[in-house]
Amino acid sequence: MLRILIDMDDVMADAIARFLEWYERDFGVKYSREQLHGTKLSEIVPPENRQKVLMYPHTKGFFKDLPVIEDSKEIIEALNNTYEIFVVSAAMEFKHSLYEKFEWLDEHFPFIPWKRRVFCGDKTIAKGDVLIDDHDFNLSVFNGRPIVFTAPHNVHYTKYERMNKWRDAHNFFDELLST
Amino acid sequence: MLRILIDMDDVMADAIARFLEWYERDFGVKYSREQLHGTKLSEIVPPENRQKVLMYPHTKGFFKDLPVIEDSKEIIEALNNTYEIFVVSAAMEFKHSLYEKFEWLDEHFPFIPWKRRVFCGDKTIAKGDVLIDDHDFNLSVFNGRPIVFTAPHNVHYTKYERMNKWRDAHNFFDELLST
Repeated sequence: MLRILIDMDDVMADAIARFLEWYERDFGVKYSREQLHGTKLSEIVPPENRQKVLMYPHTKGFFKDLPVIEDSKEIIEALNNTYEIFVVSAAMEFKHSLYEKFEWLDEHFPFIPWKRRVFCGDKTIAKGDVLIDDHDFNLSVFNGRPIVFTAPHNVHYTKYERMNKWRDAHNFFDELLST
Repeated sequence: MLRILIDMDDVMADAIARFLEWYERDFGVKYSREQLHGTKLSEIVPPENRQKVLMYPHTKGFFKDLPVIEDSKEIIEALNNTYEIFVVSAAMEFKHSLYEKFEWLDEHFPFIPWKRRVFCGDKTIAKGDVLIDDHDFNLSVFNGRPIVFTAPHNVHYTKYERMNKWRDAHNFFDELLST
């Protein structure tokens, strides 16, 4: 059975929303997603605020209650009926994220059991046929079919197939058409 | 570079010690490792206590401060100088173990960085050349060279190369001889 590996942050869970929310809370300035085009928040804030932004994902609570990326739940549930779905997150960079990500999956993606969850660092460890991810450093080391899921920081990537929205998944997986 | 995947429980961390310790705390009976020969604690306790024993690893604190398996730190550190070492634990079965295992690695194996740590469920996801593990259900699905690390419950396994103690590692990895 085809095995599809799916990244969490900015593919299933909207981590960018939390960055923007916490920045506004701390500095009173509300950046928009459009301002992140081709880059990320830590690169466009005043240099004196950069370190604090970089520490956000290391902070307890950052990954708790993140919004679910549009249509991801419904489409991944449909994919899960046909393919072997594994959630593969580079969560090890952020030790407080481990429990929060697990709980988040329990709440929003209960159909992905613990056996199909992977928290790692370097995704060269992950064996699968397809990887849907938002980062070049994950996609470029993957030994199968890499698909970039569109996020503001990756709009300039040109070397991967691109999925802009989960509702476009049927363009990549024919069997979805019949579900 | 050869990539060696190493399991945590009963290979690096002595989880059996915690089972025996908690059982004695709860029921006043001290089982020995010899009594676990070819089996595990939940199989030999009175049936009415079995469910409680099975819940131990699901309980907060179970994986905290586990004793380090003899010589594992020194030998794995030596292996780490020559090979690509990944710690691969099926931690997802026990959600409270995630943070405790991460902290345990920080304390006892700080030379294994977050990029080389993997918490998964089904180890078919893990890509590597060698797997050192104590369970048939992990070794049997591994696509490389499986090595069983001796623990009471696996003494009857016959289909794998066997490492009884970490100090025997030089029998499996020639390069260790020169370190």
